[in-house]
Amino acid sequence: MKILNLFKISPENEQKLKSLDGVALINPDDLKGHDYQQIEFIYGWNQKGDELLKKLTHVKFVQAISAGVDYLPLNEFKKRHILLANTSGIHAAPISETVVAYLLAFSRGIIWSDQFKEKHLWESDKLKKSVFSLSGQRALVYGTGNIGTAIAIRLHQLGIQVSGINLHQHIIPEFDEILPLQPTIPSNRKFDYIINTMPLTSKTYHFFDDNFFASLINQPMFINVGRGASVDTSALVTALKQRLLKSAALDVFETEPLPSDSPLWQQSNVLITPHISGASANYEQQAFEIFWRNLNALINTGHISVNEVDLTNGY
Amino acid sequence: MKILNLFKISPENEQKLKSLDGVALINPDDLKGHDYQQIEFIYGWNQKGDELLKKLTHVKFVQAISAGVDYLPLNEFKKRHILLANTSGIHAAPISETVVAYLLAFSRGIIWSDQFKEKHLWESDKLKKSVFSLSGQRALVYGTGNIGTAIAIRLHQLGIQVSGINLHQHIIPEFDEILPLQPTIPSNRKFDYIINTMPLTSKTYHFFDDNFFASLINQPMFINVGRGASVDTSALVTALKQRLLKSAALDVFETEPLPSDSPLWQQSNVLITPHISGASANYEQQAFEIFWRNLNALINTGHISVNEVDLTNGY
Repeated sequence: MKILNLFKISPENEQKLKSLDGVALINPDDLKGHDYQQIEFIYGWNQKGDELLKKLTHVKFVQAISAGVDYLPLNEFKKRHILLANTSGIHAAPISETVVAYLLAFSRGIIWSDQFKEKHLWESDKLKKSVFSLSGQRALVYGTGNIGTAIAIRLHQLGIQVSGINLHQHIIPEFDEILPLQPTIPSNRKFDYIINTMPLTSKTYHFFDDNFFASLINQPMFINVGRGASVDTSALVTALKQRLLKSAALDVFETEPLPSDSPLWQQSNVLITPHISGASANYEQQAFEIFWRNLNALINTGHISVNEVDLTNGY
Repeated sequence: MKILNLFKISPENEQKLKSLDGVALINPDDLKGHDYQQIEFIYGWNQKGDELLKKLTHVKFVQAISAGVDYLPLNEFKKRHILLANTSGIHAAPISETVVAYLLAFSRGIIWSDQFKEKHLWESDKLKKSVFSLSGQRALVYGTGNIGTAIAIRLHQLGIQVSGINLHQHIIPEFDEILPLQPTIPSNRKFDYIINTMPLTSKTYHFFDDNFFASLINQPMFINVGRGASVDTSALVTALKQRLLKSAALDVFETEPLPSDSPLWQQSNVLITPHISGASANYEQQAFEIFWRNLNALINTGHISVNEVDLTNGY
């Protein structure tokens, strides 16, 4: 049983894998001869996976090292009955901290102070008028899975009222209310923060479009820690220019890396982080632990034990 | 009974004051003739207060609109039996949010992302290695009053262990432990965050000096939301240069505004906010409400009811 490694595995974890009876680990550049037919498991996914998949005729299981799996060939996996698992869950803590960081970076004047700092400017009077406490504000979180729920808990701690949106309007106790997924914000609802955590599917592609942004009456801040293509980028840029949005904090983009000529880079009220909202120092170890659990379960029982992706729904 | 107004009072609150029997409000530029002897109450304090105090022979009560009162002539107040109140308490919520904003701005890569943004740089790989989750980190908070305690509660919510320091080692349940005030950090203790919230007194002046910074073994982040002069600025600059500190976030300074030639402006790992950590949109109203309570209590009972400053201790 060979494992194709498309991510990173520490020497300790490599030893752990090799201790399993009959298991060998192989890197894509070392593949030769019979290896292609002997690969049963793949850890991680990238362009090499796409290129090699046809030749890897005996793959049973792919462990993605991300929560969203829209970048994998789900239809091909389905046709070939390849099991897929994600690492949903381990991003929840760091992403919820990142969302709080975004909110507070604006509400406590950090972003503006840092811009004035370059010019050694002490703009105390100006900033005192713009800073505020988050208590009593309202947030709307699209997606109520692990990540959305972790965000709701953190925002509640800051005194923010949190509404959630999911496809089937499932009640989730960490939210003050659950609303149905609709293309716009109802005209009687005001939110200070719109936060996207939804997976990318045919239903969410370009969900945040001109029509959506035109329905905002309260000039909220827009936050995207879900997927870049859930947002129509040109609609977002227009919404910022028309001041339909007060500000934005974006970790994901339709094209990554964000092209250097994107108008988003120029906006002083837009915070850009380079797809790092879910990262943390122990991320690699946590991802490996999910792989390890699934690999052992598969060898022993024929099934994976956690985080299996429904290849039809795409999450 | 005349009130000298050295701060800001909204038209609504001005009406409220005028509704009190025999009370009149006066601005410093309108003072003339007998006014000087008729001022019994002062709302706010600034340089005008210092200049006028000798002429204001009948002052009974000064309501400061800050938590720290080190900039008022406390000895003169004591000699003349002038009552002094601060607005301690209303800064706790915004300052605790600011401290969380500081921690997360570094831990979630906001500061570095914003610096790369200027150059339209997508430094994903570099930043992924530097970001981390706060859970399990350790903070030491100097001062366990309203502000220090509010900070402890917020940091606990993020999974941080919080030790507190106060003068008499009073137990405060919101802290994991209370340590005595000592000039250095004991050599066996490691903290990731050192946070100052102490008032400025003769005991705390230049408390954070070369000796203190030299005792740090864990390269912590240093945060000052207390008073600027509790820190020996040149010792702080040296500690940053010698990498005894990983980073710093400073809201208060020995000289304010921070002089444009201060070396602190140049440090990329130093976040500077211009004394705004305790500000919030409803600050003026909250300060007025404390004044209103004290003024009514004083007229009716001869005593102020909240936030009286001990003129000997200075807080």
